[in-house]
Amino acid sequence: MPSQIKSGIQFSALGLRAKSPTIERLMTAALDNPKLLSLAAGFTDNASLPHNVVRSAVNELTRRESKETLQYGLNQGRPLLRKQLAVHLATWEPQLMDAAADTRFFVTNGSQQALYLAMQVLCEPGDIVLVDRPSYFVFLEMLVAMGVRAISMPVDEHGRLNQSALKQRLTELELSGDRQRIKAVYFVSYYSNPSSRSLDEVEKRELAVTLTGQGLVIPVIEDAAYRDLYFSERSATPSTLTLSEWADFPKLYLSTLTKPFATGLKVGYGYCTEPDWLARMLHTKGHHDFGSANFNQAIIERVITDGGFERQLGDIRPMYLRKMLALHETLIAEGLRELGWTWSKPEGGLYLWLEAPENLDTGLATAFCRKCIDAGVLYVPGELCFGDEAPANFIRMSFGVLGETDLREAALRFVKVARSYSV
Amino acid sequence: MPSQIKSGIQFSALGLRAKSPTIERLMTAALDNPKLLSLAAGFTDNASLPHNVVRSAVNELTRRESKETLQYGLNQGRPLLRKQLAVHLATWEPQLMDAAADTRFFVTNGSQQALYLAMQVLCEPGDIVLVDRPSYFVFLEMLVAMGVRAISMPVDEHGRLNQSALKQRLTELELSGDRQRIKAVYFVSYYSNPSSRSLDEVEKRELAVTLTGQGLVIPVIEDAAYRDLYFSERSATPSTLTLSEWADFPKLYLSTLTKPFATGLKVGYGYCTEPDWLARMLHTKGHHDFGSANFNQAIIERVITDGGFERQLGDIRPMYLRKMLALHETLIAEGLRELGWTWSKPEGGLYLWLEAPENLDTGLATAFCRKCIDAGVLYVPGELCFGDEAPANFIRMSFGVLGETDLREAALRFVKVARSYSV
Repeated sequence: MPSQIKSGIQFSALGLRAKSPTIERLMTAALDNPKLLSLAAGFTDNASLPHNVVRSAVNELTRRESKETLQYGLNQGRPLLRKQLAVHLATWEPQLMDAAADTRFFVTNGSQQALYLAMQVLCEPGDIVLVDRPSYFVFLEMLVAMGVRAISMPVDEHGRLNQSALKQRLTELELSGDRQRIKAVYFVSYYSNPSSRSLDEVEKRELAVTLTGQGLVIPVIEDAAYRDLYFSERSATPSTLTLSEWADFPKLYLSTLTKPFATGLKVGYGYCTEPDWLARMLHTKGHHDFGSANFNQAIIERVITDGGFERQLGDIRPMYLRKMLALHETLIAEGLRELGWTWSKPEGGLYLWLEAPENLDTGLATAFCRKCIDAGVLYVPGELCFGDEAPANFIRMSFGVLGETDLREAALRFVKVARSYSV
Repeated sequence: MPSQIKSGIQFSALGLRAKSPTIERLMTAALDNPKLLSLAAGFTDNASLPHNVVRSAVNELTRRESKETLQYGLNQGRPLLRKQLAVHLATWEPQLMDAAADTRFFVTNGSQQALYLAMQVLCEPGDIVLVDRPSYFVFLEMLVAMGVRAISMPVDEHGRLNQSALKQRLTELELSGDRQRIKAVYFVSYYSNPSSRSLDEVEKRELAVTLTGQGLVIPVIEDAAYRDLYFSERSATPSTLTLSEWADFPKLYLSTLTKPFATGLKVGYGYCTEPDWLARMLHTKGHHDFGSANFNQAIIERVITDGGFERQLGDIRPMYLRKMLALHETLIAEGLRELGWTWSKPEGGLYLWLEAPENLDTGLATAFCRKCIDAGVLYVPGELCFGDEAPANFIRMSFGVLGETDLREAALRFVKVARSYSV
């Protein structure tokens, strides 16, 4: 007696929440218009990608007697690479170097996977994560799919964390009974995507004090994906890993080896201070893929050993500075500031973060956005980059992909559209 | 007024369920005893890994004018690689080739990630997946972490699906109100891990008929990871993708390009017949990592184009046959069959699946397992490979890693222990 159960696919709640990323619509727009200059994608500079460095690394690896680099590796990542990561992190904060430092690292499919694992083992649908404002939009969309609420930490008019407003927000969450759902704090700490801003040392310390004062000594995720991508000088701001106010917090620090080197290799990593948290992320990674591609890790290991990695970073830093200046200075020269737009000159990263005049809506569905695409220039609408209460008048521009000439042309096209909206 | 909320880490249900994979304990045992010959790991043959093929592919890729292979790629995978996958699949089942075939493929971090994505978008905790018996233990442990129940499809004494017992089981699930929780059917269809068995065409067709008869036209996941790893002759059994009884089922067929080539590159793939299911898996992959490493995909694309991929498979097939025979024949020659052990001679894959005399417990915590480790030989206890009602007297041996001499020695050691248990 066959039952009357409906056949077919019943999706899980996560499956049902999964939506096409907004950015895909932008990419489609780009494909429809091949002459479009895209300031949207957070891709890196193509021309400077290290063909020769990778080739010589692979030649060395594949002439070794051992063929283990083409074999499965460890779920946690290659041991030597994790030791190299410990050394690398210690160049920023020497006090982090100890004999067990490498055991706290794990290697992932880009730093994105580390973010995913962290959220999977911490959050249930309905939980809350405190996020920076603005924040990394791929992370925000991931939270939406997980059914997790992102709540922005308030900032002042300079983008700096507003501690008293944050205290008030947390008190509101306590009163509404939501505070126990706050499971983690997330921010991009250096040359942020999208704002290019770095948290300064004082606000970083104060954030820990504010959270502690509210009884929220909860997991913190410091996304340091752009820390290596400074233009001229390293940031002097320590990470949460060494600031005393953060000492009692469970910490996950994450970054990537390939964003500044060769994104096609996709080797990210996390450093986690809590063995139990780390273990649960690793078990879950075991189910995702039981280890990121061993060969890519071996390539990175090799280019770190032979110095190619640092040389590449040394080459691209002044290049990104020039590219940033090409975009930044053309926007100024064309008079965008006089049209009421404001932005800061970044000291690293891949982005300009522009604030349009308050009444100018730059969202994906707006005439302004459409007009820019028609004029042959694409940007990321800032509205995607907020956990909540998204303002409509921000724009992210990336100077990662295009060359200087194209960046200047894109700036010209953009200011022309902006001018047409000025009264 | 700071509240009394408990600070620290609160894990999600998934985080709490995540446990150290049992196999890790085996690996630790192996590390503690360097003279151990491991038949446990499902790794592939080291000596035959294609150093030269990969080196020449990378040399070609990194001398191209375009550097796109070192840049981010598409979330779904490289377009040319997906076209090649369509051609590859059509060598088995030509009727699957059409102009849109490539759009149904997606590339993953090993086929494991495709499994993970499939389960994520289909299953809630408490749901049920029907699995083969025995089944792939990494998949089973993933289900446990997801809170999903695996229910074995009954088999007869030859390991063949027992349709009438399955009907009865499904009726029981209907009566207990559990049947609506069945969200998918999973099996490894060719030279299975762990049993090395392939489903034959009749039982495969009958399975669809049985499920349909019970009103269960639900998603089916055919894990064809070992289909390319036949020893001498291709299996003549079609996949679910072309058997008419399966026509109405939503189907995900998955496999890997790197298990038979170079596991260190970790390029798996899925082919999904349902656009909606595929889209939801892709959105979720976008959150995992927004695309598997582009460079690895480009390497595979290149070795498929230049014929290196097929040559490698042509080389390793007779090699795995020889290795299988070294293990299989030594076990026979040493008299294991006379001790009451039974197993089939595989026609592909990497495993022997042995049934011990009924009263002999071979589990991880047993004296037998300990004695094997002491004697310098490691296996995977069969108890890990069952969704439910696990018998205690099975063993998986892999002939993937060790050379023929070591395989013979491992067989000698194993039979010696088995003999000491014979009455």
